Amino acid sequence: MNITEVIEARRSVKNFDPEHIMPEEDLAELIRLTKLAPSSFNMQNYRLLVVRDKEIRKQIRNLAWDQAHVTDASVLFILCADLTAHQKDASLYWSHAPQEVQDIIGPMIKPFYEGNDRLIRDEAVRSTGLAGMTLMLAAKGLGYDSCPMIGFDAEKVAELIKLPAHYALSFMIPVGMPTQTGWDRGQRLSDDIVVSYDKFS
Amino acid sequence: MNITEVIEARRSVKNFDPEHIMPEEDLAELIRLTKLAPSSFNMQNYRLLVVRDKEIRKQIRNLAWDQAHVTDASVLFILCADLTAHQKDASLYWSHAPQEVQDIIGPMIKPFYEGNDRLIRDEAVRSTGLAGMTLMLAAKGLGYDSCPMIGFDAEKVAELIKLPAHYALSFMIPVGMPTQTGWDRGQRLSDDIVVSYDKFS
Repeated sequence: MNITEVIEARRSVKNFDPEHIMPEEDLAELIRLTKLAPSSFNMQNYRLLVVRDKEIRKQIRNLAWDQAHVTDASVLFILCADLTAHQKDASLYWSHAPQEVQDIIGPMIKPFYEGNDRLIRDEAVRSTGLAGMTLMLAAKGLGYDSCPMIGFDAEKVAELIKLPAHYALSFMIPVGMPTQTGWDRGQRLSDDIVVSYDKFS
Repeated sequence: MNITEVIEARRSVKNFDPEHIMPEEDLAELIRLTKLAPSSFNMQNYRLLVVRDKEIRKQIRNLAWDQAHVTDASVLFILCADLTAHQKDASLYWSHAPQEVQDIIGPMIKPFYEGNDRLIRDEAVRSTGLAGMTLMLAAKGLGYDSCPMIGFDAEKVAELIKLPAHYALSFMIPVGMPTQTGWDRGQRLSDDIVVSYDKFS
């Protein structure tokens, strides 16, 4: 499938084969492709928790309105982000670049975020959105389906997975082998609502 | 290109042909594909401002550290979101579904968000991330390059574009015809940093 076909074919699917085990090479490929998503200042602030343990999945399902895809998908990805990514040494993100580029960009990162909690939080969530969409489209390309989820008790899940205090938990993406196709695609809002030109009126 | 090749080929490009004009059918196709991104409760809370007016683009460039891709890309997309999407009548999002599904999901939406400003803001930003990543990959598939941007004075840009008070401005994506390829892809953080299994330790 080309990219247009993949975007069209990706649907939020909730019925997965609970017996399916994702081969390690598919998991590695999904992670590799997800890590090609762009991030601000190349900080790669997203963090992926790959949950396969069946007991933990059951506990998360209990915190997610008993939604079956939490346990039945082959892998449950929990998309988090490091809220302190901007504080790290910029060479972690930029040592591939020429020194003169490093000298310009490196010192910009920390002051851009420091003290602006909303921007830091926004960047965490935005980055997981970019990475998560890449993950879902990559999964479709490998023959899997997925379903982005925010319907769970985020505080209790954070406690269960021992989320570090300086991480944000953004959303979850079960990925697995579908046993049923999704519902018909939901209606799309008209361009009149979604799209504006040059300025909002 | 298949999806893997598109994800690998997409790079953040900053040098665009300022003379290139995006055909209307390409713009329409980018908008169509972007609108296939998933959103929580199918709210489609993302809003796309398509900026082509050259004078407005110059003014935005002045608010964005004079970065040339703001004016030189064929189209500048500004990704925003409606912070009141959850308050609208659910039939706007769910009238395609069977009545029993509408009866369950419709009443869930408003209480899920109401009074939780951080969740509302997160949902706005997350949704623009999902839509924006779809847009960038779709653009690559159509032969364009792009560059997600947060390096601009968001308050002043919001004023300039007359951002409605109940909208959030998330980020910008110039899309155009490249005149130079991007820098070499930035180094990737190791899986040791990005990926954890089952629980954070």
